[in-house]
Parts: sequence; structure tokens; C-alpha cells
Amino acid sequence: MQLDLSRSVAELTAQIVDVESVSGDEQPLADAIGAALADLPHLRLHRDGNAIVARTDFGRAERVVLAGHIDTVPVNDNLPSRQENGLLYGCGSCDMKSGVAVQLRLAAGLASAIRDVTYVFYDCEEVEAERNGLLRLSRNRPDLLTGDFAILLEPSGGVVEGGCQGTLRADVVARGERAHSARSWLGRNAIHSAGGILDVLRAYEPRQPLVDGLSYHEGLNAVGIRGGVAGNVIPDECTVSVNFRFAPDRSPDQAAEHVRSVFDGFEVHVTDVAGGARPGLGQPAAASFVAAVGGQPRAKLGWTDVARFDALGIPAVNYGPGDPQLAHTRNEHVPVSQIEECEQRMLAWLTMV
Amino acid sequence: MQLDLSRSVAELTAQIVDVESVSGDEQPLADAIGAALADLPHLRLHRDGNAIVARTDFGRAERVVLAGHIDTVPVNDNLPSRQENGLLYGCGSCDMKSGVAVQLRLAAGLASAIRDVTYVFYDCEEVEAERNGLLRLSRNRPDLLTGDFAILLEPSGGVVEGGCQGTLRADVVARGERAHSARSWLGRNAIHSAGGILDVLRAYEPRQPLVDGLSYHEGLNAVGIRGGVAGNVIPDECTVSVNFRFAPDRSPDQAAEHVRSVFDGFEVHVTDVAGGARPGLGQPAAASFVAAVGGQPRAKLGWTDVARFDALGIPAVNYGPGDPQLAHTRNEHVPVSQIEECEQRMLAWLTMV
Repeated sequence: MQLDLSRSVAELTAQIVDVESVSGDEQPLADAIGAALADLPHLRLHRDGNAIVARTDFGRAERVVLAGHIDTVPVNDNLPSRQENGLLYGCGSCDMKSGVAVQLRLAAGLASAIRDVTYVFYDCEEVEAERNGLLRLSRNRPDLLTGDFAILLEPSGGVVEGGCQGTLRADVVARGERAHSARSWLGRNAIHSAGGILDVLRAYEPRQPLVDGLSYHEGLNAVGIRGGVAGNVIPDECTVSVNFRFAPDRSPDQAAEHVRSVFDGFEVHVTDVAGGARPGLGQPAAASFVAAVGGQPRAKLGWTDVARFDALGIPAVNYGPGDPQLAHTRNEHVPVSQIEECEQRMLAWLTMV
Repeated sequence: MQLDLSRSVAELTAQIVDVESVSGDEQPLADAIGAALADLPHLRLHRDGNAIVARTDFGRAERVVLAGHIDTVPVNDNLPSRQENGLLYGCGSCDMKSGVAVQLRLAAGLASAIRDVTYVFYDCEEVEAERNGLLRLSRNRPDLLTGDFAILLEPSGGVVEGGCQGTLRADVVARGERAHSARSWLGRNAIHSAGGILDVLRAYEPRQPLVDGLSYHEGLNAVGIRGGVAGNVIPDECTVSVNFRFAPDRSPDQAAEHVRSVFDGFEVHVTDVAGGARPGLGQPAAASFVAAVGGQPRAKLGWTDVARFDALGIPAVNYGPGDPQLAHTRNEHVPVSQIEECEQRMLAWLTMV
């Protein structure tokens, strides 16, 4: 697989979408990105697992980080890509291979700029935080991630999205007692008891708080359920995996406490938590970028690695092509015009004084 | 592993329990049974997969079939066996390796009898009907199963249990629409919708009908549940596997119709059904056996291969050591005295005029 960075950003997006890269299987795409950037004299290339970092060394006073993940959620009968009426369809087209295509076009095309740029392409963003490639990079090579400001090219509808919501995963467990299913009244059916967990989820009323002037929207959902021993056994355990998306006015600890109290009476095991980030658009670097690209900033609802840059002390925002509401849907797509507009605005911000 | 058929029936039971034989993994135990019976001159041995059939050829007018399955449900931290206060504990001790031990003792010890005997040891009784070793035998070698009367040594508390309930398995499916879990309100959560399936199960009132004078007890239970795409995706499908145990006054078709109507509004896929058998204790062969072993017959609640013999036109009853209510429980055990009593009564019935 050879990426052609001289093609239009839309054609390049289609090419990248067609290299399947579900989380954990990013190697073919990482190899292709590494190969495409390998011979460019203005970039210093580094690889860590399936993450690629390409840095300019123009000697500028300011360094910005442009970052994007190269993995996708599982393919849902939506590959290969196809273009129709100015829209590019396909798994990852919106989240976020169009942003990755913009990064690649800029990385290849900008042999000079008014800011030094660090391009980061990383793996395993769509799975539990511990596997996240940017987290791994921040542990293995924090020196590669330094910068004055970071932009994540996550889908944001072409406007700047501030902050992000946190995400917490927990296993909520209902227990029972095994028995032969021919004499079910001698046991206690844990799957039936898990109905109580689903009752809580069905009745849950999520908050929609204002934080630093932007409006967030929480959500508490089952993302997995499993239970059962054998076809003739009353099961003694049923586990519901829930995902709590929480506004950045809660800390990870507060989010965990909330989930525990909501499922009072059941065992709750928090398996994964990543805090959100407050919008922080008042910070100078963020404010200048917002002014340059224009538009009305809004709250980022999905968790993004903005939170990780925030934790590293680097101001960061989300800005990329694609409607975030289409991310992870089978119908995922991105308007070609938004990919082009994103490329042009980033190009202008990196080259024009 | 070498079985010693000269040891007491309780010691032999313990030895058999200690040869793990969860459905699908019966080969070591089938091998051991085959080896233990191989050199007995009064038996003709046949093997079909992990099923063993041993037949006498005494030239008697009547032939009886003594049958037992050698598989167990999954081990539940209840191996190896142990004996305490006259009770033998361990996976399969009750359902039904104590019955298998009685069969083996009789097969080895009875070089002559007033009835010809066919001993059947078979695999995969604890899983879906299509894998059942007795079904396979009835297709591959129906000639080996002929007889005037059959006794299944399933646990029946040492009294004759008549007929059996049918069992039906179905997948009940809730559907939804995928979305990113950060914007869950754009999708429809299939796991939350499956709460409606669990509501039905929690509210279900099972019948307890009288059939031919014996009292049955139905049950409708979830035995498995699964759903989920990824930790950040609102799932579009959740499947609840249910097991319906139905009294023998319903046919398999009527049972399927009942389950479909109970889950009206959800997709229902019947995956497995095995009809029950009416008690039939009025038939002469059954009545003579009941008179010989004594006690008050009662209804068999669990499905057993009595129904399969019934379908082959062979009258059959359940009679074996162990409390059927302990089958498939972690605490499964059998009183040593019941194993001995079963062996003695069977021996008397097979040898005394």
C-alpha cells in the first residue's frame, strides 16, 4: 500500500479510509504513513509501535503539534469508501482519516512555515485509555510531544471545539445462584437481576451543564452485556459494561462516585477512566487560533486527547473536518468541501503572518 | 486412567467423577469405560464417537436398556470429589455419574440375568439436542437400541420419575441503532431495549399443570445474554438466550408458539427444541418396574432421554440415585446409601423371578 501525498486531500482521504485500521490492527496504515514521509528532507521521523511522529526543524520561536489517531471503530459494512454528491463515505472517513489526510498533506507540502510543526499519527484511540498510542508516546518519548499549542484534527464540523467530556467505563455486576434450568426456582437468575441495572439506565436523566460558557451533554449507557453458563443452567453472574460520558466540571473521582451511587446495590468495578478538559479558550494560544480560523467555538462532547495534552500542560483544541455526530455510525461520511477548507485554513495559519 | 469395577459402587462413582468430562470432552472417560468392559466375555461392545454400547446375549425373551450420559455441565470449583458424612460431593456426582457407576457395576458383575440387558453410555446430553450422543446412536445404529423397556439412570431421588418436561431454547433479539457513545441520544441502545425482554422474564408466571396424574412445573429463563460492539459505541443488537421448560401437555410446536407470543414485539429465533414425554406409567413394562422397585412415582421435571426412547417407541422411565434438585449446582452431591440402594434394587429386578 503506497499513499500518494501529491493527490488532492479528498483523494488522499479515500485512499487512507480504504486501508482498514481498526484499533489494534493499525500496522499496515502506520507502515504506509511512515513510508510516505520517509524521504522528505524537512522532517525528522520517529516511530513508536504504530505511532509515527514527524517534526520540522525550521528554527521558529513557536512549535505547534498537529495530532490525529489512525485507528477506527470496527468496520460496519461501510468499506470500501465511496464518493457521492460531494460526500465521502466510509469507516473512519469522518473520525478521523480526513483529519489525518490534512496532516499528511501539510507534512509533505510545507517545506517551510512560520511555526515549527510536530505531526503526530497514533494508534488505539478508540479503545480503553491504557492502550492509547499518545499516552504511550507521552511515557516513552515525552520530548517528541513538547510544544506551545496543540490541535487535534478530530471531527468538529470545521469549527473550533473547546475542551472535551471525560469518559469512564465500569462493569456493573448482578449476582445470583446457579441451578438446573428445569428447576429454576431453586436458583436466582443473575440475568433477570441485571434487569435492575437496565432499569437504572433506561430511567437515567443526563445533565446538560454550562462549563466556561460552553454547553456539555452527559450520557450513561450500556456498551456491553454478558452472562450465561450453559444452556441449561440458571446463571449466577451477569455483567453490564457501562460508559459514562461526563462534563469537564466533574473530576474522574467525582464521576466514579456518581456511577457508584447510581448503581447502588450492585457491584461496580471502574475499569477505565479518562478525565475531560475544560474549554480553556481564554488562553492566548487557543484564542489566537480561534481568531485565525473564525467561527463560533462550541463544546466538544466526545473525549479526545485534548485532555491528554491538557494534562501535559499544553493548551489544545479540536478542529477538523466532519460532523462529530456521524462518528462511529455506519453512515459515517464527510463533506469534501470541509476537508479542503480545513486544509486551506491550517495552511494559511501556518504560513501567513 | 483405569476404572476398577471390582470396587464398591461409591468408590467407583468417586473415580468416575474425578475423570472430568464436560460435554464435548468425554473422550478420556469414554476410553476408560471402553477399556474396563473390553475383556468381559458376556458383553458385546460397540463404540460410536464417545458413546459405548455393551449388550448381553443371554437369549432371554425380554431386553431392557439401561442408559446414562457420561458428560457433565461445566466444572464449578467442585472437583476433585470428596466424601463427607455419607455424602459424595463433586461435579457430576448426582447428574449422573452415580447412575453410570451402577450401570458399570451391573455390566461387569452380571454374567447372567433373567433379562437381556443393553448398557448405553453416551455423550453430550447436557448441551443442545442436535449434539446428543443417544440421538446420534439412534441414527447411526438404531439396531443397538432396540428393547422392550428402557431405564434412564438420571437422578430421581431413588424413586421412579415418569415422563419428562420438554425444553426449548430461543434467541430473543432487541435491535437498536449504533452511535458514538459520547452522543448516545443520536442512537438507540439495543441493550437498554433488552430491558423489555428481561421485564417479561421477571414477570413471567409459570404453569404447574397435572398431566396423567403427575404434577409438572414449567419455567422460562434467560440462560445467556450478549450485546456490545466496542466500549464507545451504542450497540445496535442485544440477544437474550432463553430456555423454556414445558410440561408434556404441550407439543414442541405449541411451546414455540407460546414463547413467540410471550416475546411479542421482539425477534424470536427458536434454536433448539426437544419435546417432553407424558408419564405413561400405565404401560405394562413401566408398571411392572414401578411395582418391583416400590415407592410413589412422581413427575420428572428435567428433560431426559426418556423422551427420545418414547419417540423410538420404547417405554422408558427415570430411576437413579441423587436428588435431581442438586443437579448442576456447585454443591452437587449424592448419598452413598442411595447409590447402593439403586444398585441392589436393579440387581434384584434383573436376577430374581
